[in-house]
Amino acid sequence: MITKEKIKSELGNIVSQKNILTSKEECYVYAQDGTNDISSDVLPDVVVFPETIEEVQGIMSYANSHKIPVVARGAGTNLVGACIPVRGGIIINFTKMNKILKISKTNMTAVVQPGVVVGNLQKEVDKSGLFFPPDPSNLRVSTIGGAIAQSAGGPKTFKYGTTKDYVLGLKVVLADGSLLETGVNTIKNATGYHLEQLFIGSEGTLGIVVEATLKLIPKPETTRVVMAYFDNVEDATNSVTNMIDKNVYPSTIDFMNKNTLITVEKFYKVGLLTEKEAALIIEIDGFESSMDDQVSRLQSVLSLSGASEIIISHSKEEQENLWTARRASFGATAKLKPDVVTNDMIVPRENISQLVCGIGEICEKYGLIVSIVGHIGDGNIHPQIALDLNNSQEVMNYENAKKEFYELTLNLGGTLSAEHGIGLEKKEFLSKAVSPLALEYMKKMKEIFDPNNILNPDKIF
Amino acid sequence: MITKEKIKSELGNIVSQKNILTSKEECYVYAQDGTNDISSDVLPDVVVFPETIEEVQGIMSYANSHKIPVVARGAGTNLVGACIPVRGGIIINFTKMNKILKISKTNMTAVVQPGVVVGNLQKEVDKSGLFFPPDPSNLRVSTIGGAIAQSAGGPKTFKYGTTKDYVLGLKVVLADGSLLETGVNTIKNATGYHLEQLFIGSEGTLGIVVEATLKLIPKPETTRVVMAYFDNVEDATNSVTNMIDKNVYPSTIDFMNKNTLITVEKFYKVGLLTEKEAALIIEIDGFESSMDDQVSRLQSVLSLSGASEIIISHSKEEQENLWTARRASFGATAKLKPDVVTNDMIVPRENISQLVCGIGEICEKYGLIVSIVGHIGDGNIHPQIALDLNNSQEVMNYENAKKEFYELTLNLGGTLSAEHGIGLEKKEFLSKAVSPLALEYMKKMKEIFDPNNILNPDKIF
Repeated sequence: MITKEKIKSELGNIVSQKNILTSKEECYVYAQDGTNDISSDVLPDVVVFPETIEEVQGIMSYANSHKIPVVARGAGTNLVGACIPVRGGIIINFTKMNKILKISKTNMTAVVQPGVVVGNLQKEVDKSGLFFPPDPSNLRVSTIGGAIAQSAGGPKTFKYGTTKDYVLGLKVVLADGSLLETGVNTIKNATGYHLEQLFIGSEGTLGIVVEATLKLIPKPETTRVVMAYFDNVEDATNSVTNMIDKNVYPSTIDFMNKNTLITVEKFYKVGLLTEKEAALIIEIDGFESSMDDQVSRLQSVLSLSGASEIIISHSKEEQENLWTARRASFGATAKLKPDVVTNDMIVPRENISQLVCGIGEICEKYGLIVSIVGHIGDGNIHPQIALDLNNSQEVMNYENAKKEFYELTLNLGGTLSAEHGIGLEKKEFLSKAVSPLALEYMKKMKEIFDPNNILNPDKIF
Repeated sequence: MITKEKIKSELGNIVSQKNILTSKEECYVYAQDGTNDISSDVLPDVVVFPETIEEVQGIMSYANSHKIPVVARGAGTNLVGACIPVRGGIIINFTKMNKILKISKTNMTAVVQPGVVVGNLQKEVDKSGLFFPPDPSNLRVSTIGGAIAQSAGGPKTFKYGTTKDYVLGLKVVLADGSLLETGVNTIKNATGYHLEQLFIGSEGTLGIVVEATLKLIPKPETTRVVMAYFDNVEDATNSVTNMIDKNVYPSTIDFMNKNTLITVEKFYKVGLLTEKEAALIIEIDGFESSMDDQVSRLQSVLSLSGASEIIISHSKEEQENLWTARRASFGATAKLKPDVVTNDMIVPRENISQLVCGIGEICEKYGLIVSIVGHIGDGNIHPQIALDLNNSQEVMNYENAKKEFYELTLNLGGTLSAEHGIGLEKKEFLSKAVSPLALEYMKKMKEIFDPNNILNPDKIF
């Protein structure tokens, strides 16, 4: 068994000593990630902060030759335990590789290091009149490396797709320290197999992304936000198809159920109508010249779909106010109990109201307090559950409820995760979501890219 | 060596005899595809027309056990020799698996068999108020299986992306006849590795797509076409960045150089201004309410960018007329010589005028007649070259010119193919476009999925 001191001293030949942490207190921080309902008492042996691709290659080469597990980490905001170092070993923390290397307005591309915070990238891109739509809700801290690793989405995927749709090329350090350059600098590519796509959503189990070339798009001139209340969930979900009928193509169609409205209002007093069963927050974008038309179509669609109250933003400030309710839901739910956990399921949109209602029923059965929010345009729901993680009965109830969430989701033709990933959280359910042959080939990919199983071991599978 | 008669009789146990062709005359048709500059005198032994997934599985299982090469084929319209059966064997023709199995307006998805003609899918999707943007220019004949195999794009990729961006899930028959179900029915997916992406652009070398679940989007309410002439190529290409500056986001920005204008006008008399150096055909879409605004912005951007003539369509008919010129370019060029060939290169857009001018110079050097067209918003150029394929000197000139095209493209930071693929045509150049390690892993993929190398052998690599 190689000692922690030995690893530290050997890594000191690769990176500067100041970029290596080994004290128990420091390592304790990196034993966990943003996942509240998974805790691990295994500490990493070392946390290392590389500053160059070559340093990452050196670390991997060393780790591979000694079969030391390696977990790559950005801000650690994932929600499935993907960054938890369950076998100890090395954490590679990318906070010092956080540079935007290039934004090209002409090519509409950005080249970034993995530690770039998504929100910072969006701000810089915005200055060039461009737009990078993937938008994890923790975008002020979460990194682009993490977004690629977890196949992150966000509220704007209905119109603009997920991270996957914006990755053109990647530089990936493989398990043995070699550097794989895959994909292109161009907008299209039909030159051999799309290997770069394999790494998106692979949660650091196939290789470590050290640079990404991203596609950017022109920034929509303006946005407008509309909030609509409904007296039943089904009317709210059906309104999406009615929007399509009228050529209205919102960038966001987010959902809050009654419990969410009540909980947010209880703590934040933003004036929500708590007697309603559901609310939608809809963002439209495009030319200012089309806005009145879009808003009036949307209004008429929402009325026809049974909305009992429609609120239209007339200013940036009003727009922000409408968003506040949705953003506050996690924090508000967290105030109901010592802890809050969230989950991520997706179904074909025709089954979304069954998913929402089913999750409500399961939570009621297990006595769990739930705020149900989600990106309903995509069929994607995030139940936010308040509980006490020190209460073993509540934890067991949640564990049982989760199984039923996943069963329900799969029975409704959906899949385990839309945008959070599998990690530790859902790996025991993967075989129910993916065909045996697909699972076999996923495992073959893992064997090819990481024969010693040192890259984020025990995750996904 | 297994005889043709034996193969026919064995396949007769799997598919109906009427769905098997073996006569020399019939097989001759399937020795070639849409690629004019590659001919092969190797005939397939058998052409088979399966009607079900199970039949495809049976054929593959039989072929694999006897190590018989198999080439899957839709309409055979590809331009890189991807369907040419260079080792004989079995052609699986998908023209009898051409059903649209489902179009769901609510889910915004379509489930299709591989033999569905892209144009037919678009028409059916349109009836639901939805839109499937990938649009190979031969969409009236080319199939969705072929579009997936070749990673096809088309004129609308600037705004809407390529086939890759619309594939959610695939059913793929693997080399041994097993059926791999990969991907999902939902709009987002973070459940394990994106195996489905590996098959897109794999040209039938990793598996045979037998069913696809595709993402659809809402149909833009209206479109408008604008044509702009320029006195030099660089002004034309620079105008794209100026459009982005004004938030104008066309669905199409197609390009024609002077020779194209002259050639089209010579044969079709559509009133093109043949003294101009370049023309752009720009399609914008969106709400009718935004059209006047979009057109006026576009007009002002084009003027500022140096356009010396701008023509705006005011009706569906005028719109069609403007498109006629672009669509006619291949046919017109074909009239200059007995044959016409086309190619496909892409560079970061900042280098597009260098690519256009460089291709012109290379063709001049080799005495080749070229019409240069392309999707300039993407940085993607298609030189269309008129020549006599029976004239060995002209053929050699074209072969030499091609090498220089590819060198120039790679020197400009681009890649070998944007939307046609590699096939036979470009395989000897692949190692210049792709890093050695990427090539090594592509070959590993091939070995894993097709250990006997029976799936479209000799293509890509």
